[in-house]
Order: sequence, then C-alpha cells, then structure tokens
Amino acid sequence: MNDADDDLLVNTRSEPGEVGLIEPHDFVATAPFTFDNGQTLPGFTLRYETYGHLNPARDNAVLICHALSGDHHCAGIHSLNDRKSGWWNNIIGPGKAVDTNKFFVLCANVIGGCQGSTGPSSLDARTSRHYGITFPAVTIRDMVRTQKLLLDSLGIQSLYAAIGGSMGGMQVLQWGIEYPSFVKRLLAMATTAREGAQAIAFNEVGRQAIIQDPEWNNGYYPKSGGPRVGLAIARMMAHITYLSDASMDRKFGRKAVRPRSGTPDSQPSALNSQLSALSDSMEGVDPVAPATSFNVQFEVESYLRYQGQSFINRFDANSYLYITRALDQFDLAAAHGSLENAFAKVEAATLVVGFTSDWLFPPDQNRAIAIALLRAGKRVSYAELSTDLGHDSFLLESPQLYDLVRGFLN
Amino acid sequence: MNDADDDLLVNTRSEPGEVGLIEPHDFVATAPFTFDNGQTLPGFTLRYETYGHLNPARDNAVLICHALSGDHHCAGIHSLNDRKSGWWNNIIGPGKAVDTNKFFVLCANVIGGCQGSTGPSSLDARTSRHYGITFPAVTIRDMVRTQKLLLDSLGIQSLYAAIGGSMGGMQVLQWGIEYPSFVKRLLAMATTAREGAQAIAFNEVGRQAIIQDPEWNNGYYPKSGGPRVGLAIARMMAHITYLSDASMDRKFGRKAVRPRSGTPDSQPSALNSQLSALSDSMEGVDPVAPATSFNVQFEVESYLRYQGQSFINRFDANSYLYITRALDQFDLAAAHGSLENAFAKVEAATLVVGFTSDWLFPPDQNRAIAIALLRAGKRVSYAELSTDLGHDSFLLESPQLYDLVRGFLN
Repeated sequence: MNDADDDLLVNTRSEPGEVGLIEPHDFVATAPFTFDNGQTLPGFTLRYETYGHLNPARDNAVLICHALSGDHHCAGIHSLNDRKSGWWNNIIGPGKAVDTNKFFVLCANVIGGCQGSTGPSSLDARTSRHYGITFPAVTIRDMVRTQKLLLDSLGIQSLYAAIGGSMGGMQVLQWGIEYPSFVKRLLAMATTAREGAQAIAFNEVGRQAIIQDPEWNNGYYPKSGGPRVGLAIARMMAHITYLSDASMDRKFGRKAVRPRSGTPDSQPSALNSQLSALSDSMEGVDPVAPATSFNVQFEVESYLRYQGQSFINRFDANSYLYITRALDQFDLAAAHGSLENAFAKVEAATLVVGFTSDWLFPPDQNRAIAIALLRAGKRVSYAELSTDLGHDSFLLESPQLYDLVRGFLN
Repeated sequence: MNDADDDLLVNTRSEPGEVGLIEPHDFVATAPFTFDNGQTLPGFTLRYETYGHLNPARDNAVLICHALSGDHHCAGIHSLNDRKSGWWNNIIGPGKAVDTNKFFVLCANVIGGCQGSTGPSSLDARTSRHYGITFPAVTIRDMVRTQKLLLDSLGIQSLYAAIGGSMGGMQVLQWGIEYPSFVKRLLAMATTAREGAQAIAFNEVGRQAIIQDPEWNNGYYPKSGGPRVGLAIARMMAHITYLSDASMDRKFGRKAVRPRSGTPDSQPSALNSQLSALSDSMEGVDPVAPATSFNVQFEVESYLRYQGQSFINRFDANSYLYITRALDQFDLAAAHGSLENAFAKVEAATLVVGFTSDWLFPPDQNRAIAIALLRAGKRVSYAELSTDLGHDSFLLESPQLYDLVRGFLN
C-alpha cells in the first residue's frame, strides 16, 4: 500500500470512536396514517439514519429520540467537509456510551418536523401545495407511532432501548406505554411527563413571535423567506431556557463585544457584522452616535443573535409551532388518569436522569416520573447529575452521564 | 350636614388608608442637561406625583423610584372611575408602610420614559419631530440626576429616604453614591448592582423583537401604531421573568381556557377573543380544525397575551429599548473599580431586601450589595424574604415587607 492509498484510507474510513460518513435514508409509508386528532394523511415519510449493524437475532436496535430542534442526524458526518458531527456524536459511536460496535442505532426526524420527514413544509400531494397549518396537529404519541412503523418496515421486532432527552425523553416514555412488550429499556433524560405553566408560557411567546410576524402569512408558505424574524426571536428566547444563569455568567458574564479597530466599544463585533440579516434594520444609524445604537454591546447578545440566525436557516417556523404544541399538550397523567396509571403496562426497565441546573424541565419533574414508575411496581432507577449547564446538560460532554448510559445498556 | 352632602364627602374625600384623588405635575427644566454619554438636551420635563405634605423643616421627603415598566403614578387614583390605583398603592398611603401622614412622598417618571417625562416619543423642539432613536442614551445615573433637579426645584434639601425595587433599587443605590449627604436612607429591593448574562440576554431578545419588527421603522415614529407586535412579544417574555415557576403553576398550572359554548376546548376563550389585535392573524383558520389552530389553549397563554396587549397600549417601544439598555449597562463595580469602592462615599443607612424566588435579580445579587456596603464600613441591613412569587414579590401584598419598610423608616 503506497502513501497515497494510505492517505485515502485515513480520509474515508471511520476514525476510531467515530461512526464516520453517514447517509440518511427515507422511510416512505404508503398506508394512510391517522393522527391522534383524527385527521388522516394518505402516507408520510420519515427521514432517518442508522449506525452499527442489526445482529442476526434482530434484538440490538437502539432508538434515539430527538428534542424540539434536533433531527435524525445524531452521529457522524454527511461529508468530509462537515465541520460539525451529528448532535449526539459525543455519546454515539464505536466504543462510546451508546456503542455502535454492539448496537444498531437509529434516529428518525419526527413527523411534523422539517428535516426530511413529512411536516407542514411538505407538499400535500392532494393539493400540490405545502400543508402549512392544514397539517394535522402532531402529538408525542404520533411521533412514536410513526417511528414504530419505520421499525416494522426494517423488520425490527424489539428495541433493546429507546433513549432521548427533553422532547426525546417524552417519546421514550410514550414508547414504554404504547408498545410495552416491544421496548426493553427506556432511558429518559432532562424530561417531564408534563410541562409546567412556565415552560408552556415560554413556548407560547415563541409561537406568538412567529404567528404575529406578518411574513407568517397565516401559516401558508409565502414566496419570501417566511417569518424569519419571529422564528429567530423564538429561538433566541428558547435558547436562554436551555442554558443556566451560572453557565451564561461563566461563558459570557458581562463581557463586551470586541470593538472593531477605530470604533468604540459599543459598536458591533465582527461576529455581529456577519449577522447581516438580523441587523439590516440598523443600517443608516449614525455610527458616531453610539448613544442611539442598539447594536450588540455584550457578547451574550452576539451569541444569541447567532443562535437565532443559524436556526432560521435550518428550521421551519410552522414545524416550530406544531412541535412546541406537541410538547405543551403532552400530559401522561391527564391522558391516563394519573402518572402511575399511565405507567401501569410498562414492561421495560427504566432509567431517568435529571440535571440539577435544568430549570426548563427541573429535577423534580424527572424524579416524579421515576417515583410514579416505582409506585406502579416497575423497574426504575433515577439519577440526578450535578451540573451547572442547564437543560442542555444531556447534550454536553459528561463522563458521569456516559458511565450511567453505558452501565444501563450493559 | 344633609345626606346628599354626606354622600358627596364620602365620594370625594380620601378613604382611610388611601391617598385618594391625585393629580400629576410636570417639572419643566429649562437649563440644558448633559447626559452621561455627552449629548445635551436644551431642557426636559419630568412628570411626577406627590402624596402627603412637606413639613416646615423640609426633611420628610421620601422619593419612590420606579421599575422598568412603572411610572410616576405609584399611589391613589386619577379619577373616581379608576378601577386601579397606582402601582405601589399597597405600600404608600396614610397609615401604610410608607406613611403619607408622616412623609412627603414623591415619584417621577424617569427621563427616557413615556408617561409624561421627556423620552424618545417626545417632540424635539429643534426639529419638530419625535426624538426616536436620536434621543441620548439614558443611564440610571441620568435618571437620578434629573430627579435631583426636580427635588431642587421643589426646595427639598434632603431626602428622608429613597425607596425602589428592581430598576428602582438601582436608582436608590445611585442616589446614595451620587448625593451622599443628601439622602439619609436607602431602601433597595429585588435589585442588583449589575445584571448577569441571563438578564441581559432576556432584555436583548425583547429589544430584538422590537427592532426586527418592520413597524419599528428604525426607531422613527411611523403613522401606524409602531412595533406593537414586537413590544407585545418583549413584554410577554419579560413578564415570565417577573414571576416564578411555582407561582405560575399555582395560578395557571395546565388549566385549559374555558371553551365557548359549542366549540371544543382548543378554541379561544372569551378573554382571548377580546385580544383581537393579537389574534387578527388567526382569522380565516377553519374553526372545525382545532388541529391547525394555534389559538390559546392554556390559561397561561391567555394571561400572557393580555399582558402583551395591555402593555402596548401604555408603553412606547423606543422607551423600552432605552430603559432596558440603561438596566443592562448599570454596573457599579465596573464604574468604580469595585462594588466596595462604589459605596465608599455613601452616608445613608441602607436596607437591602432580596426575595428567595426572584430569579431575575436573585437573592445573591441583593446580598452582594449589602456585603459590599458592610465591607465599605457603612450602616446596612439585609433581609431575605421567603416568597414564591418571583421578582414581582416587592410589588405584592406582604405584611412582612410592610413591617420591614415601616421599621426601617421609623
């Protein structure tokens, strides 16, 4: 093997610990699907990815369920030029906590989403128009039932585990309830069996930011870019709820943006100047009158504007409306009389993980899930990890979490 | 005295404990005022109210400093038809914690505000146009220095006390630093000597909601109603930060809005239907397709929409931008090298009150003020009240707080 070949191999084969280059697939369901709200679609598509191999016994499948703004791309890269791996690449891969040497790992973009699965931005074949807000209301249970159809189509007859955080954790719980004999292990993190008023309130402000944006156009897809401003505002606000006071103070504190040479501190940073779409409306402001400028002054402002800007390039505003509604309406206790009743038929062993600094779905709400499972006589463990990284803790580097996940799966 | 006269008296004189009918006044400063940022206005107006009487020694004046969305009208009513009294009526009045039988109480709308004081919505006499974002940047210190000019004009030579919560508390601290021999007592509640990254972040999202609203029109006053949507979004979000998870759960929980007769639960409540301005964009949605409706479903949503709607009828969006910037830029430690240094010249006795459930300006930040005053060798007490009502605790019925205030003032 000459040097050139060797280089090629290095570039194309998976690095140790990485699933490497991945191609998404589409599951196209051609049978009608009836949503929880009674509306029916003639069929639907789920975009998904898989990592590792299904064993001959077909009993090593692990389903990853994604959160509100996530998608099917949770590990690996799509091209050698990708600078970012999938959203849970730190936990999924050969030798990692969710070990693709052992498990056949799948993740599908949820129904109602906008990353290849059928959702409001898809074309309705019956009208040749985008569904928009004629798309049926989506529930967590709809997400799970469509995932089950995907697994059926792949000949998977049981799930070794279902794993997810935040909205992914809701799906995990719903899996245990809906298909009790199908799923053997449930691993739900940073989640809740029902949101409190504050979480609903934040989602509602995000929805209003979108709906009240004139470009929303009653949910129908305009020729313009849609309610980009409203979606960016919704994302900026939501992003604050994913972090914590402590982590924001450590990361940003009150640091001012770096001034460009020749301009005072209160002028925009280089980062901000990239965010032209969000700051176009500032053009024409007298640059010698920082007094009247509402450009970024603090690093945390730059960061948030960047979060808003990058989100609108990848997410559909109507999907945001639908999926936040699914979150808000998820209420296992209301649906089953009590949380204990909801879990009556669960057969899986369950691990619930709460994070101390999560103020969106606080530890109490995670603990309540474990307590109800215990009261229902189920096999359940609860772990509460001390972090100061907020709700997003489940997504971040954490040897403690890796150990927990690895231990639970083995 | 006949019955008719008696009735008349009952209707017009103050009830025991109430300051009753109040008229605001305008202080018109005709000398040029130079803001902290170096810009000068040829003059300005502060609208203010007073309750009680200045004693012959002129040493019983108590200044009330208002918060972001407050104004000069903190006690009494403006007409007999008023259904709401001033915003701190529960604490100010004859026999109340801030006893108008003893004290001459004043409160002025801050410079940069929109309730009668000079601000971005005022006409610039030099151009005959609204200032808009040509208005000078406003700081907490500018607010305090203009209040001092008002007190000077009234012949008040010392303040018995300065009292305020939230942004009002920032002004109180600035009073003690700026005019150390003038003010005898400082009472600052639910406040901070500098905001953390999270508080700045929430303010920034609110500002972006306004600035990115096409109706903002670069801050110049349009013929339309201005960035009403952006301002409502900003207010809805901010309002969540004034409450607490616990208080929202107790007040709203997951309660659904009451359905109108003949419509399913997911249809809007009577309250929501009043909020036509905010829900106009929902018109045309098929009423038999609740699936596609993003109308209010939860009471907390109705409540927030109401908060947004009522705010845009009384508040100017540019004032919101200016005043949140003043909040974010307030940083006593940065301005003086350290918080201890900031307080070096303070002569007043100080009481700082934090509230356990305040997550906007948490107890730690209040305690830090007291600790720095102590280290600087000043007379200071710190009280931390156990509440679950969040940041707004300082505004709400609290015999404990009343006792603290009364005790500190007497």
